[in-house]
Amino acid sequence: MQENNAKGTDIATLGEFGLIKHLTKNIKLKHASTNVGIGDDAAVLDYQNKKTVVTTDLLLEGIHFDLMYTPLKHLGYKAIAVNVSDIYAMNALPKQVTVSIAISKRFTIEAMDEFYEGINLACETYNVDLVGGDTTSSLTGLCISVTAIGEAEADQLAYRNGAKENDLICVSGNLGAAFAGLQLLEREKRIFDNNPAMQPDLTGHDYILERQLKPEARKDIYERLQEAKIVPTSMIDISDGLSSDIMHICEESKVGCQIYEEKIPVDYETHKMAEELNMNYSTFSLNGGEDYELLFTVPLDRFDAIEKIEDVKVIGHITEISKGKYLVTRDGVEIELQAQGWNPIEEEEN
Amino acid sequence: MQENNAKGTDIATLGEFGLIKHLTKNIKLKHASTNVGIGDDAAVLDYQNKKTVVTTDLLLEGIHFDLMYTPLKHLGYKAIAVNVSDIYAMNALPKQVTVSIAISKRFTIEAMDEFYEGINLACETYNVDLVGGDTTSSLTGLCISVTAIGEAEADQLAYRNGAKENDLICVSGNLGAAFAGLQLLEREKRIFDNNPAMQPDLTGHDYILERQLKPEARKDIYERLQEAKIVPTSMIDISDGLSSDIMHICEESKVGCQIYEEKIPVDYETHKMAEELNMNYSTFSLNGGEDYELLFTVPLDRFDAIEKIEDVKVIGHITEISKGKYLVTRDGVEIELQAQGWNPIEEEEN
Repeated sequence: MQENNAKGTDIATLGEFGLIKHLTKNIKLKHASTNVGIGDDAAVLDYQNKKTVVTTDLLLEGIHFDLMYTPLKHLGYKAIAVNVSDIYAMNALPKQVTVSIAISKRFTIEAMDEFYEGINLACETYNVDLVGGDTTSSLTGLCISVTAIGEAEADQLAYRNGAKENDLICVSGNLGAAFAGLQLLEREKRIFDNNPAMQPDLTGHDYILERQLKPEARKDIYERLQEAKIVPTSMIDISDGLSSDIMHICEESKVGCQIYEEKIPVDYETHKMAEELNMNYSTFSLNGGEDYELLFTVPLDRFDAIEKIEDVKVIGHITEISKGKYLVTRDGVEIELQAQGWNPIEEEEN
Repeated sequence: MQENNAKGTDIATLGEFGLIKHLTKNIKLKHASTNVGIGDDAAVLDYQNKKTVVTTDLLLEGIHFDLMYTPLKHLGYKAIAVNVSDIYAMNALPKQVTVSIAISKRFTIEAMDEFYEGINLACETYNVDLVGGDTTSSLTGLCISVTAIGEAEADQLAYRNGAKENDLICVSGNLGAAFAGLQLLEREKRIFDNNPAMQPDLTGHDYILERQLKPEARKDIYERLQEAKIVPTSMIDISDGLSSDIMHICEESKVGCQIYEEKIPVDYETHKMAEELNMNYSTFSLNGGEDYELLFTVPLDRFDAIEKIEDVKVIGHITEISKGKYLVTRDGVEIELQAQGWNPIEEEEN
């Protein structure tokens, strides 16, 4: 457990413009499509004849992250990763991001440097240019707003509404790990709150902790799909949970689905954590959010091509709308899917 | 003075997805460049061979607005206006916006409807499509993040770094009015806080109140410049104050400037408010922020064309960098300009 309001240099010593200059001084623009980055009223981009894809996310302290156990560098990295993930989920290539932050005076320049280290690392990893943003103060917690912009040829875009009957439902990586990591961190926080002398016990849980604190967007899967010349008939990134997100695809595509519980990939550490907490690991994989894996559909005749892509599993298929949206359990029982995904609005009410 | 947490329908009755559907159900897309709006992982835009211009702003309760005296409809309108203002300041045409909000549970659906009424009205006024956003909860105040996207031909863009020696410095409208309105509202709030039985006295101050609560971006000036085929050599919108914003242009363009105090346009109500508060009105016009007027430079030989544009005044000229940045007062005294504009980061420290 850490404290982020450690001693350091007061932000007021720089002022708003000074802080922006300080934080952005090392930015090197990578893309020809980035004509002008930070420093004017707006950034200027040139996408020529490609489609421009835009997404935005707002992250708030106490709702989306807890600075008690979230290192600021990871937080900066995650803020970029979750946004470029939405661009990949369109089967598009992220190119630029803007980052706005509101900070309270307990943040030091050193703390902001740490946050921007994570931002910059993610911009390197996902090969995007940081082209703008806004920096202001907050009376309360940290607030982060990121907008990501990307490009794609018109015929390459994958929407949520294109899934067809008999299409295969595919998912990358494994599910429920980020939620398992969150459960662990929350448990250790409760123990620490009750007895600050206790040291948290996080050993043996590195993987699920990383999935929660420093998730990756599936750039690699986007690239494999491009190489295999597969354009998914529909695609979404799993931010709310498999159950909720497959329902988005079904509703937008006006189809039903059948998903097989035994096919849903779950990591060993996720299993173990669920067991420790006396919970069913399928609850984690079906309803745990923030995995940022790609969930997509492809025509049945692309089965062989999909099989060859490492780290992608077929977990079910699309049915006609009247068949409904079902999970087939290990025992062969069909259960109607319910959207129990992570809901930040309801969360507050609990 | 008003209370925004009036009785109404609890947001939790809708949930996140329900709320988004409710708030965006009446959106009609206006532009051919908006291929896909709200409802997928990202919006899809098509700018063909034009440049894409992107800007973003973060507005926080208690820092940028006070819900004690800010009607939510005006706040929604202002959130859009201040962002499209940045697009006009590039001499570009705004086309799309995304709006993200974080709300605490004291907000009702009716309150959000009011906020979105303002958003939608501004989208009509400035002819922009609302194409995306994020809706989440906040443990504390209201947080608004808007990104605006626009287009321009490459040779039409006006940056901050193109001002040349002898260029005329021009400004639209009048300055200091938004700051005068803020001073009035803050004064009446203090009176109300001390004695809630007192009714605020805002009569005769309609203009400055509107400039503070419901500012407009200068779409009309952008259009007049287009008609007159004037491409400013540099342009910025006045959000931090004339003094601070002309300094941005001078620093980016590596030039000096000379501004004449007597030429700076100030409205009668701004004068009157300054007098009531025993302050110098030039402090309002030089250092008051949030006017969202356009400040730009044009070559000397465009003087006749500029003279014909209603509501634009020439207030000085660009000099070589060694001459420095000066204000010439009514008495003919030269005073070096200082950036004392509105600074949200320092603000908190006061």
